Amino acid sequence: MRYTLLPLDSPIGAVDGFFCDGVGAGLKKDGLDVGFIYSDRVCDVAAIFTQNRFQAAPIKHFQKHAIKKTNFILVNSKNANAMTGKEGIEDIEEILSSLPFNLQNPIMSSTGVIGVRLPKEKIIEAVKRFDLSAKNSQNFAEAIMTTDTFAKTIGFEVQLEDGSSFRISAAAKGAGMINPTMATMLCFIVTDAAIPPEDMQELLQTYAETSFNAISVDGDTSTNDSVFLLANHKSGIYDKEAFSFALEKIMHHLALLIVKDGEGAKKLVAFEVKGAKSKEEAKRAAKALTNSLLVKTAIFGEDPNWGRIASTIGASGVICSEESLSIKFGNVLVYDRGKILFDEETERKAHQVMQKESFKISCDLGVGEESFTAYGCDLGYEYVKINAEYRT
Amino acid sequence: MRYTLLPLDSPIGAVDGFFCDGVGAGLKKDGLDVGFIYSDRVCDVAAIFTQNRFQAAPIKHFQKHAIKKTNFILVNSKNANAMTGKEGIEDIEEILSSLPFNLQNPIMSSTGVIGVRLPKEKIIEAVKRFDLSAKNSQNFAEAIMTTDTFAKTIGFEVQLEDGSSFRISAAAKGAGMINPTMATMLCFIVTDAAIPPEDMQELLQTYAETSFNAISVDGDTSTNDSVFLLANHKSGIYDKEAFSFALEKIMHHLALLIVKDGEGAKKLVAFEVKGAKSKEEAKRAAKALTNSLLVKTAIFGEDPNWGRIASTIGASGVICSEESLSIKFGNVLVYDRGKILFDEETERKAHQVMQKESFKISCDLGVGEESFTAYGCDLGYEYVKINAEYRT
Repeated sequence: MRYTLLPLDSPIGAVDGFFCDGVGAGLKKDGLDVGFIYSDRVCDVAAIFTQNRFQAAPIKHFQKHAIKKTNFILVNSKNANAMTGKEGIEDIEEILSSLPFNLQNPIMSSTGVIGVRLPKEKIIEAVKRFDLSAKNSQNFAEAIMTTDTFAKTIGFEVQLEDGSSFRISAAAKGAGMINPTMATMLCFIVTDAAIPPEDMQELLQTYAETSFNAISVDGDTSTNDSVFLLANHKSGIYDKEAFSFALEKIMHHLALLIVKDGEGAKKLVAFEVKGAKSKEEAKRAAKALTNSLLVKTAIFGEDPNWGRIASTIGASGVICSEESLSIKFGNVLVYDRGKILFDEETERKAHQVMQKESFKISCDLGVGEESFTAYGCDLGYEYVKINAEYRT
Repeated sequence: MRYTLLPLDSPIGAVDGFFCDGVGAGLKKDGLDVGFIYSDRVCDVAAIFTQNRFQAAPIKHFQKHAIKKTNFILVNSKNANAMTGKEGIEDIEEILSSLPFNLQNPIMSSTGVIGVRLPKEKIIEAVKRFDLSAKNSQNFAEAIMTTDTFAKTIGFEVQLEDGSSFRISAAAKGAGMINPTMATMLCFIVTDAAIPPEDMQELLQTYAETSFNAISVDGDTSTNDSVFLLANHKSGIYDKEAFSFALEKIMHHLALLIVKDGEGAKKLVAFEVKGAKSKEEAKRAAKALTNSLLVKTAIFGEDPNWGRIASTIGASGVICSEESLSIKFGNVLVYDRGKILFDEETERKAHQVMQKESFKISCDLGVGEESFTAYGCDLGYEYVKINAEYRT
């Protein structure tokens, strides 16, 4: 099989039968804030949602109607429609029933401030300007942004050995309130592959574990996180292995873009924990590292403070001892199973690693065979500024 | 019974038979960094320690010797003697055996940078300047400080109905790396009460739950956290109820001082969670609130962003629904079991509450009878500055 990147300015529009666009409804002060994805053939849809107990109204609406097939997703930013109770769901029903198109089970998805009713008149007005024949992936990706600083899209054409091919593309948004078990992140994946519905749900869940559920910007889990996969079967082609590979690549790529765009973040760090007794322990330690304020601020300061790494692993409670643990910044070994290798030369080299925009910190617990990599970022003044401003 | 505050400049020295002081050993650039508490009669000692898997050398030393009685605690700041392996313990044994006094089972306690061997020559030199007849509580409290901005001591004389009395005093340090299950916090409590050893351990553990284990500055749990209680029985007096009351007051007071002195913190916030199904659930939700970056930055911005409060409770996974939850800032009800009460007037009032230096945020989960209060602080630019500077 062969993978070709679809044009970055319109990956979703490049998938046969899918259309998308974004318009400004006046929810944000300026810019695009309401977008759609439309398919000219009804799609199978699979979705995974936040594990926050207070799931937002759009998620409840989707579950209430047990939607399995759709040809339309409406997305707004700036207002999460969360903690809005029954009225929040009624608002969605009113908006969706006002859509001036012939649609099947339209879905809504929202992101933004929690606890404020949707400005539904504005959205109903804006929707009238939708052009269902548009293929503006970039506009769609911008319309779903909140504190994101850049739009996040990607797509592939996958060619199989026999020359047949299918396409898969996606757009996502993230930035703050990002912690596994989903985050204030939304992701919309579309494909013309002829994937069976049961594979859709299985593969989404599998790859969410190592992508969106492996990243953290601030350890907060939002009420709205959603990943949707829409398949219109138009290519008639499906190969599970090839599809899995492409789906994982897309989800992983977008997840890393979200961390990279973490509020105020300047560095993308892969925290690899290996030699763990179990996958769960590896994950627990790796995620503790992404969420430790002391580790995040040390990364911001480019300080190879391995003591904070060790302390965080110890605090995570995983099985490990001083005599089994080793720690590397990039390829620089600073602590090796009881031996402190942190002399001036080593410190200088470790500091150099941390000056890069993207690097790896590896911890070998030395007690087993399991591993997990979580992705995090630094925490600096910008994060505080973005999140302390009155009602962001 | 009647409680009288002991003089704040020397509460430890005010307890019969206890002596203390601090000197400068040159571990810090300047100031006091090595201190002691000495008792002229051998004391019973009880202690509780961090749950971090990598307990520091002084904790391992204490446990190795299973110390039950002592008359001397040596404390240094600036170096945690953690992740230093067998050598770390040998350093302690060398330092303690060099003490030029006739002591019984001396104890050592350390706080500071992780992963660097103790500068033991400096400490051995400094110890020679100790004057065991000194009663300088203030010097001791300063010698144990790291990034603390003020010394933390308190003491009471407790008078019983029959006119008899005992005294209990303590000094603590805290600041960063503070999260329940202990934190980079040290606390030394001394008393002349005739408390039986079994009560010492029981009461320490009981009140740690609602004091030191109920506070969080940054969610990080250190390798060194220790609380010691020394009893020399000199007063010959013991009343469990009176002692419990005084011990709780002292631990609670010092715990709150530690949050108040959280690195760069300007606000002390009590997060009360009530109406929970179980004590554990109440605690989990309350502690999630103290550790949420989005909540902490909203407090820094004095923004009554109740949506972040709700989202954090939902993310903590405790049993609760939108229709059962209510949220108050001080006495201002902003969300009441499904009803958003957050109009302009309410917002103004809630904002006023948050302008105070110290206030309460109450969440009633509405599903049970259990409650827990955790204490946290804001997170602002100062925290980032303190923790991002190269090797703090």
